[in-house]
Amino acid sequence: MITLYHYPLSPFCRKVRLSLAEKKLEVRLVDEPYWEKPAELMRRNPAGKVPVLKIDGAVMSESAAICEYLEETRPDPALMPKDPKERAEVRRMVAWFDDGFDREVTSKLVGERLNRKVFGQGYPDSKRVKAGAARRRYHLEYMSWLLDRRRWLAGDAMSLADFAGAAHLSCLDYISDVPWQDFPLVHDWYAKVKSRPAFRPLLADAIPGSPPPRHYADLDF
Amino acid sequence: MITLYHYPLSPFCRKVRLSLAEKKLEVRLVDEPYWEKPAELMRRNPAGKVPVLKIDGAVMSESAAICEYLEETRPDPALMPKDPKERAEVRRMVAWFDDGFDREVTSKLVGERLNRKVFGQGYPDSKRVKAGAARRRYHLEYMSWLLDRRRWLAGDAMSLADFAGAAHLSCLDYISDVPWQDFPLVHDWYAKVKSRPAFRPLLADAIPGSPPPRHYADLDF
Repeated sequence: MITLYHYPLSPFCRKVRLSLAEKKLEVRLVDEPYWEKPAELMRRNPAGKVPVLKIDGAVMSESAAICEYLEETRPDPALMPKDPKERAEVRRMVAWFDDGFDREVTSKLVGERLNRKVFGQGYPDSKRVKAGAARRRYHLEYMSWLLDRRRWLAGDAMSLADFAGAAHLSCLDYISDVPWQDFPLVHDWYAKVKSRPAFRPLLADAIPGSPPPRHYADLDF
Repeated sequence: MITLYHYPLSPFCRKVRLSLAEKKLEVRLVDEPYWEKPAELMRRNPAGKVPVLKIDGAVMSESAAICEYLEETRPDPALMPKDPKERAEVRRMVAWFDDGFDREVTSKLVGERLNRKVFGQGYPDSKRVKAGAARRRYHLEYMSWLLDRRRWLAGDAMSLADFAGAAHLSCLDYISDVPWQDFPLVHDWYAKVKSRPAFRPLLADAIPGSPPPRHYADLDF
């Protein structure tokens, strides 16, 4: 049995959940209050972060390493192209979301407006929320620019880049923080990813005390 | 011809330079003042970061994507093991340095004590320097723990994980910020990596106005 230690509103965990589901791998989900640095988690991953995946008798961490492992050991269906240059582009876009987008947008909006409350860390820092909202526009514009030229974010086939991007946007959407109407290309792309069976479990997520808005799980949003 | 746009004291660029050199690929280095966000750089990499690599008619960014590309297209000598679980461990350790170590240590010590001056951004933030120095100890202890159990950082063969770790430590060492005497296992491991021919160009780096200390290039440090 595969076990994933996760936090529902972590975009890194969501990317891994999407990969597992797309590859039709059954997984047992265990909620991990990683912000409390539980001893068991620190033993599994000294970095104190989720996701942590128990699979094939091993314990793995770092979402990029986990997704590459799934790709190498469960290549069908593929979430990476075969051509090395196209693979580099997928990896660049995954890093785009998990590094820059996360630091500039997700951590500032979801981190301040939702996680602080869940983690019991007080009120949002309004400066950071404001900075995140400002930077969000730039990223949505860049995504629109890409989607005007490509069928999917990193090329003409759906890939891990789309899962990474959709994982971040889904966390923002959970707190109604995506101005969909201003970015129709991003909306249509997200609708395609959102309607995949692999996405369904994410749409059923609900943080106690902070339920999602109604449109969050609606495929016709 | 392969061209690398880089900043000499970027650990991410250093990791790529080590990979290129270990694979005996000739590269033209171009200094890129990325902090000024030059238009040419923003065109090559909208994230505005180095390294950027021109290779095989393509332009690539994100050091992890670049190193995976080099591994896929120039597999000899290998910097990644063949076994998927061992590869996951190498990727975990690379992320350990490029994510956590960088955020907690390198960006706080090299970022404040050297880069601020080079970038013309004023005086170091002494709070951040202090936080970085405190966290450095934890990381060197973890490296010692690993090196007590393994020949190299991610297993029994040298890998990209060692280049990632040595890239960060070499930047700290450039500003005399590694207490080598307190961590003999880390010292001996670094001496092994430092003595490789691939490391030589890094030891010849000198930032105008901020030359390295004498021991920096000394193999018997």
